[in-house]
Amino acid sequence: MSKQVWRVGVAGLGTVGGGLLQFLSERPDFAPAGGRAVVTGVSARSRSRPRSVDISDLPWFDDPVALATDENVDIFVELVGGSDGPAKAAVEAALKAGKPVVTANKALIAEHGAELAALAEAQGVPLLFEAAVMGGTPAVKMLREAMVGDEIDGVAGILNGTCNYILSEMESTGRSFADVLAEAQRLGYAETDPTMDVGGFDAAHKISILAALAFRCAPTFAAAEIEGIDQVELLDIKLARDLGYRIKLIASADRTEEGVAVRVHPSLVPLGHPLAETRGALNALFIEGRRIGRIFIQGPGAGSGPTAAAVAADIADVMTGAARPVFQAPAGKLQPFVAVAPTRRVGKAYLRLLVRDEPGVIAAVSETLAECGVSIDSFLQKPVEDAGGVPIVLTTHATPESVLMDAINRIERLDAVIERPRLLRIARI
Amino acid sequence: MSKQVWRVGVAGLGTVGGGLLQFLSERPDFAPAGGRAVVTGVSARSRSRPRSVDISDLPWFDDPVALATDENVDIFVELVGGSDGPAKAAVEAALKAGKPVVTANKALIAEHGAELAALAEAQGVPLLFEAAVMGGTPAVKMLREAMVGDEIDGVAGILNGTCNYILSEMESTGRSFADVLAEAQRLGYAETDPTMDVGGFDAAHKISILAALAFRCAPTFAAAEIEGIDQVELLDIKLARDLGYRIKLIASADRTEEGVAVRVHPSLVPLGHPLAETRGALNALFIEGRRIGRIFIQGPGAGSGPTAAAVAADIADVMTGAARPVFQAPAGKLQPFVAVAPTRRVGKAYLRLLVRDEPGVIAAVSETLAECGVSIDSFLQKPVEDAGGVPIVLTTHATPESVLMDAINRIERLDAVIERPRLLRIARI
Repeated sequence: MSKQVWRVGVAGLGTVGGGLLQFLSERPDFAPAGGRAVVTGVSARSRSRPRSVDISDLPWFDDPVALATDENVDIFVELVGGSDGPAKAAVEAALKAGKPVVTANKALIAEHGAELAALAEAQGVPLLFEAAVMGGTPAVKMLREAMVGDEIDGVAGILNGTCNYILSEMESTGRSFADVLAEAQRLGYAETDPTMDVGGFDAAHKISILAALAFRCAPTFAAAEIEGIDQVELLDIKLARDLGYRIKLIASADRTEEGVAVRVHPSLVPLGHPLAETRGALNALFIEGRRIGRIFIQGPGAGSGPTAAAVAADIADVMTGAARPVFQAPAGKLQPFVAVAPTRRVGKAYLRLLVRDEPGVIAAVSETLAECGVSIDSFLQKPVEDAGGVPIVLTTHATPESVLMDAINRIERLDAVIERPRLLRIARI
Repeated sequence: MSKQVWRVGVAGLGTVGGGLLQFLSERPDFAPAGGRAVVTGVSARSRSRPRSVDISDLPWFDDPVALATDENVDIFVELVGGSDGPAKAAVEAALKAGKPVVTANKALIAEHGAELAALAEAQGVPLLFEAAVMGGTPAVKMLREAMVGDEIDGVAGILNGTCNYILSEMESTGRSFADVLAEAQRLGYAETDPTMDVGGFDAAHKISILAALAFRCAPTFAAAEIEGIDQVELLDIKLARDLGYRIKLIASADRTEEGVAVRVHPSLVPLGHPLAETRGALNALFIEGRRIGRIFIQGPGAGSGPTAAAVAADIADVMTGAARPVFQAPAGKLQPFVAVAPTRRVGKAYLRLLVRDEPGVIAAVSETLAECGVSIDSFLQKPVEDAGGVPIVLTTHATPESVLMDAINRIERLDAVIERPRLLRIARI
């Protein structure tokens, strides 16, 4: 409640930056701790691009690093994006100059969070990133602040709205991944280069950050096991539904005795489960704590309004003067990240085979699975037109991933099997 | 990160206090901001009562006020309970002595929050109460900190686990309210005097606190409209289900142009809605923000582990040195609470009539409703054994509460109507 005016420099003026400028111009005195937050400088790639907010009266910086270190900036807000390049340079420069930083940049925090945390803590300034995960839904604050009296065993959820929208549309309209993606791009729901989203990398950045907060370790994006939704077929969505499941891109982080497993996979979620019922562009997350039990949060994961509100909440937090480490422990005391090998996963699985319509096929498949030690939970054979064979779908009881892979390799070699079996995990939730 | 040891005085050693002592003895260095939290004094009604934790080595205080003001206490934790008496005296004494206070006491905050906030802010010390609402699920932190960049239009949820457990059990076992309550008391899920829970008062305390945080006004428990679950009949649970609803005790706070409406009612929630699917002792809450949209959180609302973890998170927050007002604005700037009269509510309703089995009854009821201007949405007549008449159930389109009351009074006077119609609201969610 000490400072009367906090001067904010905003780098990056896309939808979130525009939303933030709009908000701060309407409600500069929004922070409960008192004082006003006033934008005193902006930077973006193009000064002249048409924008929803008028920036003609605001000091302009071609270089975000110059903005980050400007003497008229007390808080630096980084909305440029990207794990390296100008975003990283500007954040580092601001921290080195002893300025608090607020960012929505998931790639930056997931890939360089530990070193930036060390820098922020050495300078004694906050580095906040609520808007990096789940937009306006405060997953970061929950794990970072509300769960400190607990030990977290795992987090799992839907962290990419674009993927969730595409999967929801595929199911409800019966169109293919490519068709729905093209439409999403036309509508502006998906980027021109959709790889970050549909390849699972965006979700992996986010779950890497949540894993660091949950398990008091350094964020380690490189250790994440990532599979996107670009290979999800309509056939699998339909067959999964017949078995009582919905396919969702599930990002999860679990702590076991061996270490931490961070994974992003298209996964089968039982119909009726809150994650299965999280539709469209919504995000959702389960947090499993030993004392608290299971907490579920759901809300909009992106968009100008929610994300700008999350950035504003971080600015308000800076204004309280709270002194916390960037993650759940000071940077020097973060646990080393010990990744669990993907093959160590034990879980239920969905296997879809395409076989020739001839006698003995099911027996051959069943025998192979039995020889490998894979136990079948359910089995479905359904005539599907134009499938180029007969699809057979089965779900397994909990099986080590290494055993599954062995079984898949052996099934693929059977004469009556037309293509390599498709594996999808059944979510452990 | 300045202070090395924070000395904690704990008044009230029930399940939450015991859980907290256990936690702090195991993990005194849990706070990310650094420093240790060490219990340096305890107080409770009985020193000798058997407890799960050994308190023989801890300084004992017969009087919680003496503990609150003891020179060896840096943070006072109040887990005594009750809106007045020793809890209030001790919290006031601690604040007057310039000590931060953490409390789980919903009645105290709902009924005296504004004056305690003024006292805390005058002294420049925090007064935190995360554990007062939804136990370990951080509803208070979400509204108080994460939503400051938004304008909240409404909050609604299930805030009393005992009521939710009883309603869930009534539905799944087909037993009466009295039977299930008696069992819950035997199992320790309900108090010997269950009035606070089943009468809706506990939920009203909690929603009053959330309303204050959401709308930047003083908590005003006296303005809450309260109806408990003690009059909910099994017949209504069954008939509601036939109509596609589940009965839940819904606590809500809405801001309209006229003011704020804080309500606790047994309400019909559509099957499949996340609140309808919140079973047993779980709590759940929707927050509706203009920028952020709808956020949903769900988790355990009570219990030693979750509630003690919430108290611990508040202690960790005190240790960060953050300077925030107690509510969303400094006590002197809180909006006056302008209550909307119950009769101003406009919403859909469920009416259950018990009528004689004779011709013309439905016509008479329909005509009366039409005369009053109540529009019927659905209608169900179902033979029920031993009901002492024929139950007729109808749901209405959105209707002002004053109009509904007029209609109920007129229907009650019809010859063929055996008892006063039962009104339940359909939740606006």
